[in-house]
Amino acid sequence: MQLNAAQKLIHDHLLSGEMKAGEEIGIKIDQTLTQDATGTMVMLELEAMGIDRVKTEASAQYVDHNLIQEDFRNADDHLFLRSAAQKFGIYYSRPGNGVSHPVHMQQLARPGKTLLGSDSHTCANGCMGMLAIGAGGIDVTMAMTGEPYYVKMPRIMGVELTGKLPDWVSAKDVILEMLHRHGVKGGVGRIVEYYGPGIKELSAMDRHVIANMGAELGATATVFPSDKEVKRFLKTQGREDQWVELKADNGATYDEHEKIDLSALEPLIAKPSSPGNVVPVTEVAGEAIYQSYIGSSANPGYRDFAIASEIVKGKQAANGISFDINPTSRQLLEQLVENGHIANLLSAGARMHQAGCNGCIGMGQAPATGRNSLRTTPRNFPGRSGTREDSVFLCSPETAAASALTGVITDPRTLDISYPKIKEPTTFSTKGMLEAPPEDNSQIKLEKGPNITAIPDFQPIEDNFDLPILLKMQDNISTDEILAGGSRVLPFRSNIQRISTFAFEIIDEDYYEKAMKKRDDGGHMVVAGFNYGQGSSREHAALAPRYLGLKVVLVKDFARIHLQNLINFGILPLTFVNEEDYDLLHPEDILEFRHIHQTIQNQRTFDIKLKGTDRTITVQHDLTKRHLEILLAGGIINWIKEKQ
Amino acid sequence: MQLNAAQKLIHDHLLSGEMKAGEEIGIKIDQTLTQDATGTMVMLELEAMGIDRVKTEASAQYVDHNLIQEDFRNADDHLFLRSAAQKFGIYYSRPGNGVSHPVHMQQLARPGKTLLGSDSHTCANGCMGMLAIGAGGIDVTMAMTGEPYYVKMPRIMGVELTGKLPDWVSAKDVILEMLHRHGVKGGVGRIVEYYGPGIKELSAMDRHVIANMGAELGATATVFPSDKEVKRFLKTQGREDQWVELKADNGATYDEHEKIDLSALEPLIAKPSSPGNVVPVTEVAGEAIYQSYIGSSANPGYRDFAIASEIVKGKQAANGISFDINPTSRQLLEQLVENGHIANLLSAGARMHQAGCNGCIGMGQAPATGRNSLRTTPRNFPGRSGTREDSVFLCSPETAAASALTGVITDPRTLDISYPKIKEPTTFSTKGMLEAPPEDNSQIKLEKGPNITAIPDFQPIEDNFDLPILLKMQDNISTDEILAGGSRVLPFRSNIQRISTFAFEIIDEDYYEKAMKKRDDGGHMVVAGFNYGQGSSREHAALAPRYLGLKVVLVKDFARIHLQNLINFGILPLTFVNEEDYDLLHPEDILEFRHIHQTIQNQRTFDIKLKGTDRTITVQHDLTKRHLEILLAGGIINWIKEKQ
Repeated sequence: MQLNAAQKLIHDHLLSGEMKAGEEIGIKIDQTLTQDATGTMVMLELEAMGIDRVKTEASAQYVDHNLIQEDFRNADDHLFLRSAAQKFGIYYSRPGNGVSHPVHMQQLARPGKTLLGSDSHTCANGCMGMLAIGAGGIDVTMAMTGEPYYVKMPRIMGVELTGKLPDWVSAKDVILEMLHRHGVKGGVGRIVEYYGPGIKELSAMDRHVIANMGAELGATATVFPSDKEVKRFLKTQGREDQWVELKADNGATYDEHEKIDLSALEPLIAKPSSPGNVVPVTEVAGEAIYQSYIGSSANPGYRDFAIASEIVKGKQAANGISFDINPTSRQLLEQLVENGHIANLLSAGARMHQAGCNGCIGMGQAPATGRNSLRTTPRNFPGRSGTREDSVFLCSPETAAASALTGVITDPRTLDISYPKIKEPTTFSTKGMLEAPPEDNSQIKLEKGPNITAIPDFQPIEDNFDLPILLKMQDNISTDEILAGGSRVLPFRSNIQRISTFAFEIIDEDYYEKAMKKRDDGGHMVVAGFNYGQGSSREHAALAPRYLGLKVVLVKDFARIHLQNLINFGILPLTFVNEEDYDLLHPEDILEFRHIHQTIQNQRTFDIKLKGTDRTITVQHDLTKRHLEILLAGGIINWIKEKQ
Repeated sequence: MQLNAAQKLIHDHLLSGEMKAGEEIGIKIDQTLTQDATGTMVMLELEAMGIDRVKTEASAQYVDHNLIQEDFRNADDHLFLRSAAQKFGIYYSRPGNGVSHPVHMQQLARPGKTLLGSDSHTCANGCMGMLAIGAGGIDVTMAMTGEPYYVKMPRIMGVELTGKLPDWVSAKDVILEMLHRHGVKGGVGRIVEYYGPGIKELSAMDRHVIANMGAELGATATVFPSDKEVKRFLKTQGREDQWVELKADNGATYDEHEKIDLSALEPLIAKPSSPGNVVPVTEVAGEAIYQSYIGSSANPGYRDFAIASEIVKGKQAANGISFDINPTSRQLLEQLVENGHIANLLSAGARMHQAGCNGCIGMGQAPATGRNSLRTTPRNFPGRSGTREDSVFLCSPETAAASALTGVITDPRTLDISYPKIKEPTTFSTKGMLEAPPEDNSQIKLEKGPNITAIPDFQPIEDNFDLPILLKMQDNISTDEILAGGSRVLPFRSNIQRISTFAFEIIDEDYYEKAMKKRDDGGHMVVAGFNYGQGSSREHAALAPRYLGLKVVLVKDFARIHLQNLINFGILPLTFVNEEDYDLLHPEDILEFRHIHQTIQNQRTFDIKLKGTDRTITVQHDLTKRHLEILLAGGIINWIKEKQ
């Protein structure tokens, strides 16, 4: 049978299940990636499970999110993560090295391998011919211990690329085109595989841009073939010996089809406040901006900064504009310095920040009240920038740089210069980027500062209970809204008790207080629309509400990673059988759950009574036997303990 | 009569009073400097006074403190400051341009001129043959309106420098030697003037290092002569035409004498938690560090970064060390990039931060719990780093860079390399560093975000009142302890009501609550030892407690700027006549103030009864007639309003 590239990757790693769309499969994980905002939990979980050394081929712990260090907490986390990396046999990337995804691509990514990462943009490394999947922290923990990663076999969407990008149009516009066509749910339950003659026009880092924002499509993974360009990229890293070819067999087919003529694209932009809200730049050109922001895993490449440098070279950013440059890796920054690009940007008035996620995750660089921010980042969910009622647009570095010069949103094609040609460097320095763990870890002690606390114990849900609805939310609620990132919140990622005070605060400032009131009185549930839990993979978005007594989430449908996180921490995820029932429910309504243990094990579909009425709501779940075991144990940690 | 350089500067600007130490003099101010953390208040004050355009020769507004932007507040402040700069005829330096003191030195400083700045390190520009004085914001506001700056004529301490610094010893060690000899009060009521043959061995930026930390000596100003080196420096900035010579007359004398043989110095370090706690580096060598931090106005020069770069070139910072590089100006950063120094630092593992004050003012880069931080910054007051129980050492860039390599405090002389020679660049780019205000300001509107609130109205102190003592504090309480900097607090610098919740929290977490309870019940007072209010010039350290009902501060003695800030906002500053009376007072004691309006106008010394006892405490004040007017009006804003 002819396989496409995604199918080949799965086939080569299949440990259980059948490769039929929708069936649960278990996959062998070769590599893992954790970052600091999710990694502290992973390390605490490894400790709780008594693991001596991880069993993957390569695992890396990056420090890229919490770089501000307002007080001891972030710094303590960094030291804890380094000690844990040494203890458990994990590579450690120090703060200032840059964003996990491009650094992993440079240092460890290998075609033909699988990568599971506790960051939703882990899919970025699909650019290297890998099966790279973002997951909740505890799924990554399990993978590190050698357990398979379980996921429903996705449908494979083949996207044929033809033609060649016009001047002033770049990879970001390709993925924005995909978001324009398919929206933020268009990739749910799917792997997006790119192929066709247009591929060869895209560098490995260009493919990273496209693969990365597969997360915004809701896709399980993005897969590019491993071709000569991947080999060239590995060579720049001194790792060409690790190249293997990966491509779809002749005659391979896809479950779904899409085609993009690159030569027909124009500069695109996602308007506030969804990555799916895409229009041509021309449609919003002329709107005044406060900020032009370049960086993040959605535009991490050498060329993304170099093109901006060439655009602003010898000119000045408009007065009053914050022109924020966020290098994505120390390796790239060194090269950009050497080739004069950083000098160009500085000379134009740029604010040069340390290599890392920075403002992309709301760690600084928040825009002013009521002002537009133009960013090359992957997400513009409400409030993610740190400014509550923000107005963030997503675009290419070309559009961002052009707009920095003019002070208004600008179609870069209207600049009066010819399109700069960027030559990729042929080698990069790789000195000291990853610290290898010692062979002998017997003397290593975990270094835990006072903010690093154990994960609370959770009880399994009862068999019979009534639950009040605390929140009723609309469609596309992201994990940023469930539990914000940003510099106020991120320092508490190692402290569930404390971080829970921020849960749902963007949606309802009083949620914490309301939930605490109900907590010892049986807990509560929440209701929402479609695509609930999109965005970041942070398991804190399940853990924190769980700590506050959240037992059931009833929605129209779920985003993949968050659904898994709910199960992993013992929260029952239900969907409406009749979507219109959503309209019948209101905050403070109480639902009566009866004989729920038996019910969910025996039935996919069942009724819940709306207390004080004759009404019932028909709900369903899609839990596997393994899911049910985990759920009824009160979560994966209890489940593992029971198994031991 | 032969004058020394300091006397010449004063003489040339004297508007009132006599140049007798201790007498109040009024000085014409040629230039002013404000930064964002103090500048928003200054701009609100200019607005409140209905000023059309400032009357100084040059005023500049820098944005260097609040660069993190966790939410809209800092960004809104930046936009407000830019609009105010345009409206009032002030140069504006955008975020990312760097720290006010070196940028002012590069762009505007002129020998022979006076500079008043709402930042305690304004004295740094004394390196240019200026009389540069740090003051509270409202003093700077007054100077901008053309009013004289009033200060008691300082004693002039002449410091003769001889010899030449040995290898591995640099300007920072000179000022640390001064602090070793004289302590953090050694400069109070004094101008420190450097002269002698050793001067010519120090570059203008080296002198900046020494002049800057005159603030840590408590000095009113630091003065260096304007010689050929100042001319050379101005030439690198394309401003050599602005050079004038300034030097002490032959035969000029000083009120006090000091002499430093540069060739006899060794690497020094200030241990936690005072800049006066100086020992040789050898004494603490070998202690493990978490952080090596280079930057700040206390080591802002090209050579300070270049020497670090040459020391770490081709090597790696020790694993686990946070090696934080904080460029001090965009201009310097461009040059450091061009000459390969940034590449060296990055390659060694440095975290490159944007140009600004950053961690020096507690905006990020806080050290981990219980770990040592080594910094080239001017201050290590408790908690200033952002970590409450911090352990910060102050040292030269040589010592910091050497220690970054080893991971322990290291005397740089023990490195196995020869001392790198740094060549200062002959020119710097000056493009776009300062935005000039428009000629016509009639169309400019102040842009005020929602966090920018008016200064509260304050009532004058009553004639008869009882005051409970809320806090009894020891010696050397800094304004960092009275009202912290740092990223939690700084965003509220334009909002007195909100920032007051942080007042004295480092000393007593319950102060805010206690003060609020007493606020409508007559207010309160505080008691402290020597050198009360040292450090930062922030007038918020007077404004916030004032808003909470602070009426009287009774101490052994005051630091200069804070004393003036107390008067400016209508708080009565008193000192003990008998220092041992300090021991008689306790928190919650109540003091009875009677007929205080008449008393302070007629008597320098008077008694206050300790309520419920027969005891009295004899107190004194040192207020001029102008001070008394301001105080009895309830502060300078009321006083100005009354005068209009």
